[in-house]
Amino acid sequence: MLDKIPSVETGLREALLRKINNKTKPAGSLGVLEKLAEKIGLIQQTLTPELVAPHIVVFAGDHGIAQEGVSAFPPEVTYQMVLNFLNGGAAINVFCTQNGIDLSVVDAGVNGDFEQNGSLLDYKIAPGTKSFLSDPAMTMEQCRQALRSGEKLVNTLQQQGTNIAGFGEMGIGNTSSASMLMSIFCGLPLEECVGSGTGLTDQQIQHKLSVLQKAMSFHDLEKDDPIQVLATFGGFEMAMMTGAMLAAATRRMIILVDGFIATAAFLAAFEMDKDVLDYAVFSHESAEQGHKKMLRYLNAEGLLKLDLRLGEGTGCALVWPLVQSAVAFLNDMASFESAGVSNR
Amino acid sequence: MLDKIPSVETGLREALLRKINNKTKPAGSLGVLEKLAEKIGLIQQTLTPELVAPHIVVFAGDHGIAQEGVSAFPPEVTYQMVLNFLNGGAAINVFCTQNGIDLSVVDAGVNGDFEQNGSLLDYKIAPGTKSFLSDPAMTMEQCRQALRSGEKLVNTLQQQGTNIAGFGEMGIGNTSSASMLMSIFCGLPLEECVGSGTGLTDQQIQHKLSVLQKAMSFHDLEKDDPIQVLATFGGFEMAMMTGAMLAAATRRMIILVDGFIATAAFLAAFEMDKDVLDYAVFSHESAEQGHKKMLRYLNAEGLLKLDLRLGEGTGCALVWPLVQSAVAFLNDMASFESAGVSNR
Repeated sequence: MLDKIPSVETGLREALLRKINNKTKPAGSLGVLEKLAEKIGLIQQTLTPELVAPHIVVFAGDHGIAQEGVSAFPPEVTYQMVLNFLNGGAAINVFCTQNGIDLSVVDAGVNGDFEQNGSLLDYKIAPGTKSFLSDPAMTMEQCRQALRSGEKLVNTLQQQGTNIAGFGEMGIGNTSSASMLMSIFCGLPLEECVGSGTGLTDQQIQHKLSVLQKAMSFHDLEKDDPIQVLATFGGFEMAMMTGAMLAAATRRMIILVDGFIATAAFLAAFEMDKDVLDYAVFSHESAEQGHKKMLRYLNAEGLLKLDLRLGEGTGCALVWPLVQSAVAFLNDMASFESAGVSNR
Repeated sequence: MLDKIPSVETGLREALLRKINNKTKPAGSLGVLEKLAEKIGLIQQTLTPELVAPHIVVFAGDHGIAQEGVSAFPPEVTYQMVLNFLNGGAAINVFCTQNGIDLSVVDAGVNGDFEQNGSLLDYKIAPGTKSFLSDPAMTMEQCRQALRSGEKLVNTLQQQGTNIAGFGEMGIGNTSSASMLMSIFCGLPLEECVGSGTGLTDQQIQHKLSVLQKAMSFHDLEKDDPIQVLATFGGFEMAMMTGAMLAAATRRMIILVDGFIATAAFLAAFEMDKDVLDYAVFSHESAEQGHKKMLRYLNAEGLLKLDLRLGEGTGCALVWPLVQSAVAFLNDMASFESAGVSNR
């Protein structure tokens, strides 16, 4: 359905490493920023990368599973938080404003109607998914629609010149979806995939786990059809994000992946096309216990380790200045030769 | 000699936590940024902190011990790198420019003369320390002069309105000084305090260790006179940084502490006045093996974990946007009440 992602050519690696190692600093002393500079150089196939029109998209959607007492917050908070995004009061607004990042908010399937608002993109598929305790969360057709909508959205970003995009989410109940996806795609028991989300107590986590175990037995899915897995357990906001990630990689954009839920959406994208990994920068390692294991499964590391567990794309917004730093040192630092500094 | 540091009043803590917990996000979901916001609120004794005129100072000085083959780079690199700072080509220049941070470069004791340059502050004490293998690195009077110079410099920053300052360093050989200070102040054997610095091989690290062990036996110091320890094993740039840190805390500034060498200078400050810790924000955890142990000794954690080991204050410059984020969310996010979002 979506175009094949072009794999990243690695022929430029040696020249990039030479450029990085000729900068006036001890070799390797900028740590993971050097790996990041190398990765961005390869994605853009240049020794002088540029980051253009950074954009974060927050996808919002409601979840039928939220009726099962799996979240610390009531389901209406999804709707309320979208209003908060539109009014500029949420964390993602504050961090995007601080760091000069454009922000779009997408209604992927929120339970509630919004007034016309220039800041809200209406891609609503339905007012929330069904509870996957008894039904697939969405139909295959709805899931495909969400994937396509994600692609459409990325086309708009591309038309605006964006070559780096972060994807965030809002959806009460969506750590449950993420845990289901993680369990299936990473092949890990649900116990290792379930956490406190927005702040469950240990007892509430046990309840969440038992709900999810019931759902897992009921559907009994394998990972060989990732769209079916996504349709059965995902959310509209997650499926749209999966589509957006795949489309962004197809268009050679840098993808900033946020936390637990965004990485679950990424796992679905990865199942559909492994080459998406070449374009992904993992913003942070979440306090949600499953996230580090997802990253390990992907052989990836999150840049920030701040015990964030907020979502909304906040990790993408917070890591953005470090991504700029990686590009800035590659472009703007002097070399040993140009600065007349003795190399070891 | 320096004024006593005012300890931070903690009476405001409860109101700060209430404000943080009323923001539209799950409680605790901004992780260590929430601790940082609380700390900054306490330092400034306000629920609405402001960061004014951020400034990074790079102190440069040469080290007699560098003649003993303890560094991967030749000693003249200190001088060359100061020129690189003045020409804007070093990593710290690039990151300060990117993040809108003012930068000052201080000649604390570089072996070489510089032409008049508006960007260079001349506090030169001597053209490098003596080798502490056979002599104290500096006299007690030189050390006191360096501490006072650090204080003078902070007075200048204060006059410019700065209420947050980062301190970096450049000095070939200064990881050796830092290891000596760490060993004495943290009470750890030198093996645990010595690392590869700018890139020594394992064999070269062994040589560095044996040089430092010889010096340690030769001087046989206790930690009860921190100025003597600093004079014996420190560098002019480090002693000046120690003085600057103490002075900054006295003036209730937020201190951004960089990596291994800056934290060693901080350890000296901490020995002189424990309350300096209340004002310190540890920018990162270095790849230099001793740094994490220093932080553990101080019961502190570095914000960034990027395997940096560059110095120059680069960790301070890179962490700065996150410090801004901590203040921004505290000031600018909506509360559950103001946004009409249901709390759990």
